[in-house]
Parts: sequence; structure tokens; C-alpha cells
Amino acid sequence: MRYTALLLILSFAASATAQAATPSEIVATAPASSWISIPGDDLLVMEIEGGRRVIFQLADRFAPAHVANIRKLAAAHWWDGTGIYRVQDNYVVQWGDRSEKKALPADARKNLPQDYVIDRKTVTGGLTLMPSRDSYAAATGFLNGWPVATDGKALWPVHCYGTVGAGRNLAPDAGNGGELYAVIGHAPRHLDRNIAIVGRLVEGTEHLSSLPRGTDSLGMYGESQKAIPILSVRLASELPEKERPHFQMLDTMSDTFAAYAKARANRQDEFFNVPAGGADICNIPVPIRRYL
Amino acid sequence: MRYTALLLILSFAASATAQAATPSEIVATAPASSWISIPGDDLLVMEIEGGRRVIFQLADRFAPAHVANIRKLAAAHWWDGTGIYRVQDNYVVQWGDRSEKKALPADARKNLPQDYVIDRKTVTGGLTLMPSRDSYAAATGFLNGWPVATDGKALWPVHCYGTVGAGRNLAPDAGNGGELYAVIGHAPRHLDRNIAIVGRLVEGTEHLSSLPRGTDSLGMYGESQKAIPILSVRLASELPEKERPHFQMLDTMSDTFAAYAKARANRQDEFFNVPAGGADICNIPVPIRRYL
Repeated sequence: MRYTALLLILSFAASATAQAATPSEIVATAPASSWISIPGDDLLVMEIEGGRRVIFQLADRFAPAHVANIRKLAAAHWWDGTGIYRVQDNYVVQWGDRSEKKALPADARKNLPQDYVIDRKTVTGGLTLMPSRDSYAAATGFLNGWPVATDGKALWPVHCYGTVGAGRNLAPDAGNGGELYAVIGHAPRHLDRNIAIVGRLVEGTEHLSSLPRGTDSLGMYGESQKAIPILSVRLASELPEKERPHFQMLDTMSDTFAAYAKARANRQDEFFNVPAGGADICNIPVPIRRYL
Repeated sequence: MRYTALLLILSFAASATAQAATPSEIVATAPASSWISIPGDDLLVMEIEGGRRVIFQLADRFAPAHVANIRKLAAAHWWDGTGIYRVQDNYVVQWGDRSEKKALPADARKNLPQDYVIDRKTVTGGLTLMPSRDSYAAATGFLNGWPVATDGKALWPVHCYGTVGAGRNLAPDAGNGGELYAVIGHAPRHLDRNIAIVGRLVEGTEHLSSLPRGTDSLGMYGESQKAIPILSVRLASELPEKERPHFQMLDTMSDTFAAYAKARANRQDEFFNVPAGGADICNIPVPIRRYL
């Protein structure tokens, strides 16, 4: 545990160990102190027709106005009866009210500020920078459990597989948080800084990624494709205690995470001949587990 | 067209044009001379139960022994009656003979050489290097239509969404080309140089990426999940002329491709506020189209 460190910079130099532990072995043997519980107010539980449940974690830190609105929409049960209407291969699944006519709850904002980046100066701890070069930014790393990139002045969350963002129309519109999307393909990092990232999938990803692709332009469901009904979306904290899911994420400031990230960049289990010696930020997914 | 150039090195510096063309507009208006026809011997057509067709393109250049074996297996109709037995979310779909007991055709090799990288010195033309930094290699680019990485001495194809490779058991085994996989998630670049890349999907990707995920370890189909039957796999050149599909790929040495790659790295259509200024090699998919 290195909570006191303002900033960690890891090295991915391969260790001399002949048979190093695999990333999953490192995670499986992580001490309890390396895990951080995710508050119930940060977990959204989406029930989809057919007994399919998808759970995602919200990220206040990056898009606070969007996440505040999303909590209000969930509290008002706004998504109940909406649907999944876009599935674009190697890109995103999108859900909400396709007509964009459904009234928002009275306490929700109709057009949100562009909270796409934060000021690097406001980050006073919790940041671990990764050593690998990045194709899009001066540096990448993890801020309190979330993958981020920075140019030195600004810092922003990045689009990886499973990232959840808030759809919008053409800039400078920023949407209202009602139309959400999840990434189901190669990291679309060109979206970084151009749209609000509000969270990430933590369970049930396969229920979105395996949906039939939309036949219309941009993967929109076509005339012969019915939107997939969303039965309900609830904050975990609103669910009866017995139904409430509990998750923990690996502390990205922990020694365990450092070892995990290094192992991701230098796979040394028997299958591999040549360790990569690096890993892009989206190839180091933050381990998340159910507990209790 | 710059066929005479041994090596192109692009620059992604943003142009001064206020409203630049989008990547898809550039591809849509490409002159005929920018397209290269893909030979019928390089196209494999896989028919899956349920009227689903998946087509992939073979890459001799990188794994010639594997591709030669694959052509022999296809000619012997070896895959007919095999199945898709592994679908791991954000990773791969795998197919072939799960039992690994099906006899190979007499003219096929049983254990192939590790043709995972080629000598950079054998590349005397057709290479375009990309300016963006890469998390895994000294440089990346395209060799005659295929995404590659290099450390200066060796050069190898990279794993992107849609890449097709030949499954194997633990190193130094290299398999026989019968068990194939396709990437359906974020680029697993740690596989580069560790396994034979034999091609890429060019049509019907969604029939693989939307399959139900396997419930067993590594996404293997579990007891309650039946393998998805493969009806046939044929080289396009073996099909009757009327059924033969025809594809072209954008010439990665063309001016059109250079403009397309630059536009991918600097999206300037109305949706975007901030162009990325870079793109990783897997975020510049080589445009491929049907023709005739």
C-alpha cells in the first residue's frame, strides 16, 4: 500500500525471475488490503429482457455533472421501458430513449456542461503512471482505479473495452446522460476528450457485446429489428439489501496492481515465447470482483 | 500512387484545412487505382449453420507454412462438419476440431514451423511507417496492406480486431493451422510474435463477434453449449464462378491511404472537438470492399 505517494511511475523492465506469476495468479493471491469496495451509489444495475443483468460502475471524478444527472434518472426509474437500439460491431452498444422525447425528471438537467477533461493540477494523489508509450497522449496511467491519459495540463479518462459514456448530438451539445453507450470493440481512443465518460461495465458485458448488430447506418437497429427492452435501471443502493450486488476493485496504487500491470506487459507463462515489454493502457484492465 | 518508394513515413500533423474530409469520405472517393484486388486463393469462405457466411483473407507473407497448410485443409474440405467451440468475450472466437483427433489430409504438415516474424531485411518495398508512437514496438506501419510492427531487425504482423491466427498448444508447439481464431475485442498485442497470424476477417465478422460467450474457462463452450456447426470452408477460387466473392483492399502505399490514415488520427468532422493527433495501428483498419 502506498497511499502516501502522490504519484507512482512504474517500470515494465522484465524481471529476472524465470517463471513469474501470471496476471491472474497475481490477482487471485492479492491481499485483502489491495482491494477497495465500490459504494452502492456508484453501481447501476440494468435488467434487460430475457433475464439478462448488466452492472456498471459510475465515475464521478471525471464527469460529475453527467454522473449526478444519471443518478437522478436512475432514482426516477427513467430508463424503465426504454431500450437498446444501437449495436455497432467493433464499436458501441447504445441504449436509452431513441425518440429523445421522453420527459426528464424535474430535478434533472437538460443539457450538461462538457465535463470531458479535468485540470491536472486538481490531481493531488492517487495517480500511477504507466511506462509504456501511448499513441494518443504524452502519458497514460490510472487515477484511483480508472484508466487516464494526460498531456501535462489536462487529464482525462480513456475509452477502453467496457467503458460507458454519455451519447450526445453534434458538438458543442453534451447531452443529458439519458443516452448511454458501452464500448464493445477495440479502444476508440479518438473519442477521448470529445464525449463524457461516465463509468464502465463490471458484470454482464457479454449480454451487450453478443447482441445482434444493427442493420442500419452506425449500427442502429433497423425496421425489422426491435429495440431490446430495458426492464429497469437501479442504483445498487436503492435495491433491497438482499439483492444488492457488492464489488471491489484492485487498488491501482497497490503493490499488487503494480505487479499485475508489469505481468500484463511481460507475459511469462508457458504459452509465451516473447514477452511484449509493454502494454497499452486498455490492455491493463483494472481487476474488479464480486465479494460477500 | 508511389509504388517506387521503398518506404513511406507519414506525418499526422494536423492540416490547416478547416473542414477536412472524414475517413469514410476519403475511402468513398478513392480513385480505382488506389484499390488492389485480392486473389481468390487468398479468400476463405466459411459457411456456418443458420445461413451465416464469414469470409477471411489469408496472408502468405508472414506465415507461409501455416497458410500453405490451411489451403490444403480447405482443398480437402477438412473443416466441413467441425465447429465453433470457443467464444471468449473481449478476446477470441475459435473454431476447428476441438477433439484434435480428426486426421489431417495426407499432404498437410502435422506440426508447423514457428513462422511468427520475418526478417526486416527481406522487406524491400511496400512498407509505410506510421508516425504515432506504439506501446509495444519501436515502430508500426503497413506492409502491402497488412498492419505490422518492427524492432528494426524483425518485422511481424500485429493482432487487431478481426485478425485471424492459428491456435496452438504450449510453446514451442506451433499447431497445424486447423484450429483457427479471430480477435473479437481490444487488440491482444501481447500475442504478437507468439503465434502465427494467418489472415483477417473481411466480411461477416458480426456472425462471430455476436455469438454467445462460452461458459467454461477461457470461453470454451460448456456442457450445455453445443458447438456451432461449420458447414463448409472453401477457397473462393474453388467456388463456381457465380458464387465467388470478389474483394479489393485499399493500397496502403497510395496517397488515398495516407490521407485516410491521417484523417483517422485527426477526426475533424462536426462531432469532434479535439482531434486525437495520433492513432494506434489497430485504429487504422485497412479499408476492404466488395466489388463486381
